[in-house]
Amino acid sequence: MTFPTRTTRWHVAEFRLPTSGPRIVPAPSARPPILLRFSHPSGLAMAVEGFDDGDGGCVVRWAAPEEGRWEWNAESPHPELDGLTGVVDVDPAVGAAGSHAHGPVRAVGFHFAHADGTPFRPFGSTAYNLLHQSDDAIRETIDDLAAAGFNKLRFMVFPQAGDYVVRTPEVMPLERTADGGWDASRPVPEFFRRLDRTVELLGAAGIQAEVLLLDAYDNDAYGLNRLTEDEDARYLRHVVARLAAHPHVWWSLCNEYDLLDRPDERWDRAGELVRALDPYDHPRSIHNWRRLYDNRRPWITHSSIQQGQAADDAGRVGLFRDVYGKAVILDEICYEGDIALRWGRLTGRQLVHRFWTTICGGAYASHGESFEREDGSLHMVAGGRLQGESPRRLAFLRSILDEIGGAGLEPVDSWWDDEFVVGIPGRAYLRYLGDTHPGGWTFRLPQGLLGERLEPGQRYAVDVIDTWEMTVAPVDAVFELDEVGRNESYARAAEPVALPPTAPVALRIRRLP
Amino acid sequence: MTFPTRTTRWHVAEFRLPTSGPRIVPAPSARPPILLRFSHPSGLAMAVEGFDDGDGGCVVRWAAPEEGRWEWNAESPHPELDGLTGVVDVDPAVGAAGSHAHGPVRAVGFHFAHADGTPFRPFGSTAYNLLHQSDDAIRETIDDLAAAGFNKLRFMVFPQAGDYVVRTPEVMPLERTADGGWDASRPVPEFFRRLDRTVELLGAAGIQAEVLLLDAYDNDAYGLNRLTEDEDARYLRHVVARLAAHPHVWWSLCNEYDLLDRPDERWDRAGELVRALDPYDHPRSIHNWRRLYDNRRPWITHSSIQQGQAADDAGRVGLFRDVYGKAVILDEICYEGDIALRWGRLTGRQLVHRFWTTICGGAYASHGESFEREDGSLHMVAGGRLQGESPRRLAFLRSILDEIGGAGLEPVDSWWDDEFVVGIPGRAYLRYLGDTHPGGWTFRLPQGLLGERLEPGQRYAVDVIDTWEMTVAPVDAVFELDEVGRNESYARAAEPVALPPTAPVALRIRRLP
Repeated sequence: MTFPTRTTRWHVAEFRLPTSGPRIVPAPSARPPILLRFSHPSGLAMAVEGFDDGDGGCVVRWAAPEEGRWEWNAESPHPELDGLTGVVDVDPAVGAAGSHAHGPVRAVGFHFAHADGTPFRPFGSTAYNLLHQSDDAIRETIDDLAAAGFNKLRFMVFPQAGDYVVRTPEVMPLERTADGGWDASRPVPEFFRRLDRTVELLGAAGIQAEVLLLDAYDNDAYGLNRLTEDEDARYLRHVVARLAAHPHVWWSLCNEYDLLDRPDERWDRAGELVRALDPYDHPRSIHNWRRLYDNRRPWITHSSIQQGQAADDAGRVGLFRDVYGKAVILDEICYEGDIALRWGRLTGRQLVHRFWTTICGGAYASHGESFEREDGSLHMVAGGRLQGESPRRLAFLRSILDEIGGAGLEPVDSWWDDEFVVGIPGRAYLRYLGDTHPGGWTFRLPQGLLGERLEPGQRYAVDVIDTWEMTVAPVDAVFELDEVGRNESYARAAEPVALPPTAPVALRIRRLP
Repeated sequence: MTFPTRTTRWHVAEFRLPTSGPRIVPAPSARPPILLRFSHPSGLAMAVEGFDDGDGGCVVRWAAPEEGRWEWNAESPHPELDGLTGVVDVDPAVGAAGSHAHGPVRAVGFHFAHADGTPFRPFGSTAYNLLHQSDDAIRETIDDLAAAGFNKLRFMVFPQAGDYVVRTPEVMPLERTADGGWDASRPVPEFFRRLDRTVELLGAAGIQAEVLLLDAYDNDAYGLNRLTEDEDARYLRHVVARLAAHPHVWWSLCNEYDLLDRPDERWDRAGELVRALDPYDHPRSIHNWRRLYDNRRPWITHSSIQQGQAADDAGRVGLFRDVYGKAVILDEICYEGDIALRWGRLTGRQLVHRFWTTICGGAYASHGESFEREDGSLHMVAGGRLQGESPRRLAFLRSILDEIGGAGLEPVDSWWDDEFVVGIPGRAYLRYLGDTHPGGWTFRLPQGLLGERLEPGQRYAVDVIDTWEMTVAPVDAVFELDEVGRNESYARAAEPVALPPTAPVALRIRRLP
């Protein structure tokens, strides 16, 4: 047996507990093969399910949310494990947690932050079938995404089938039953160790791993879309027990869930199961095809939405915030690429436009690339090297947000304002004009209802941002509010700001001391 | 006692049943003063609560949904009423139901229809405090609205207080308690007979009466916003028993509900109460100020939404359909008027634009007018004569929809299409270009997923509609589909359609036989 006795906060500490008993991969109501109960002098307690890794041993992975001495005891149907106890000292001297130092990301209001409060601004990409590529391809893809500045990746556990999928999986997640089905009580260790490695690589690269748990892209090729609800539950317990200790994991129940013919109640039960199993409260969502899920359901932490036209208008994006009351990520806004299907032929400029629009609606978006690769696949399917023009511009947008700082940009007057200014009221604002602006802009800010009030005499600086050329040009003027109305404020004494006529322009407006 | 023995379908038949017992205005769990159980040879059964009208008598109002001989029996805590029985013959020979011949309106999918299937296309207006004007003013307002072509009116039962309210109510809905509060067990008959008359006048004018049941506009002037939940329930039972037999009644729980500090659960219980009490299943909604209600709640039949910017873009409007899965009426899209507040100073042209946008998002909108009247009030508060430029154009829009016919116009490709074509796929389409169009239009139709498929060789006619001048100019050409793609279809052989450069334009596209 191996027990950790010292670890550092948010580091994955692994308990390896050999048994001679039969393998246990529990259905929803059954006891797990091992459960560790951790307790901290502060009163904090955690129940952490382990999993049977298939080599005659149980494994528990745990990441400590607090420093200090934790006590643990084991509950298990395996008599040799039941009743084991121990202590773990969580000590900063053990070593830095690296990219996980800030702890897991959670949805906070309409935005995201790590456990220690550090804001997290998702700029994710997509490679659904990444896990089923070669080890080298996985590593290369992750390195390339990290270099491009992406900080999240959506990928599936189960293999994808259908158009643009050219590689057959080397190993499947479950063993076969005698009659050719899948045995959910026998997860394949080799497969799940590949999943472990991929998640670890993402973590080392500073990329949040958004795990798409169930699979609407099987197209009956493998039949993993036909598992029963109990079989799904066994699999979910295994994956959550295996991965939840990684601070950078997100759960997405399914991509385009409504391709499958399942009642919402089944998805709700699966979502509630994941919530109940996960001691770290990682972000949980479900992503739609044509039928929007009821993102108000309590187990959903943020709305993961596909709606083709929504990213073209900040007002549309903002309505998703209003109706669901949660953070919004538009997780498919079509792809930069060159294939014939309409969702896969955005220009880089169109995709960058959609990102700016989404951010200026108070939400977030995900990237994906669909240039046809030499082997006939796409980056959004299999990964590889990025080819598009958008990633650099998205990294630039991310840097603009990082410079503004704060928990996140809020629509200032979302009920009314067709100009869609987002910001931190009274401090900093972002306004996206796109490339259909009239060539000039007259200083104007909405008052809104929240945050610091606009007052006469407040002074602002304006930067003109060329969102495509990635330039930031400070306007050589100070904008002092001289007319503050009930809804709108102006700097009437200032000249209008000249804008480059054909560039897609945004304005950053910052309060001067 | 007066019992009807013959009536006609959807006519309000009134039972007047004097009693010598004490007045009963029941709280939620209590028995009503009288309940009539109706049964029809077909097996149809209805339980209809009556109300105590305060003059020593109970009243039951009933509208028969089917012809034939109905039997009824009475249940009552008044011994002289309990056990009464009778029959009513519902016979077309008794007389025409007039404007009610088609029966109550209900939400059907994303649209509305009468009980007999006749589509109802809401073009409503708003006069919140109408009930508290003089009888002459009420009559004049209703006549004027009917002449202008409006077919629905939103008005409150409780009196409004605050800005632009210049008239003090002559009579209040409840009697006072000894300590100066309101006694929900003693509704004032004189007040509720005024409500009856107003609803009857609206019915005679062919206008649906949308009754705003509870009141967020009291502003503590009268204190009717401070009734307890049980007091609200007594009042709601009284109003529903009194009015539900009128086929043209709609229930709106409250306008701008979130001005009041109440948990959603209380609104839900009130909505469920109204649903349980109303044997006719009239439309039920709740209208928000800034916080959108969860319009997925089962008691809500359609979404009644206020969102200032939503009516400016068909894509935004359509999202409300997508997220709530119900018919949408944007019940406040700001008002045509001349007051200083931003919600009350739309030009007629702006309001007409918002209606066309909303219709072309697959939804409906409500009108209101806020020109300051001589007495300092507004039409949207007190009614009066309409002064605006929009009503004629809205009646024109309504006539365009009537000519197209059908159950309602659906967004053809709402997931994607930024052009927002609505229609009856393969038959007829409407597309609103507004006044920022480039002066010409190339024939193009989205394929969409539903309805009749577009096929090469199908021939279409196009009308250019000037939405402001109210002209319909047929294009002298036939548009034959010669390129039908997966998502879009074209008539490449046809010339582009010339559009009047500055007019706000819509296109009507109809399939030729």
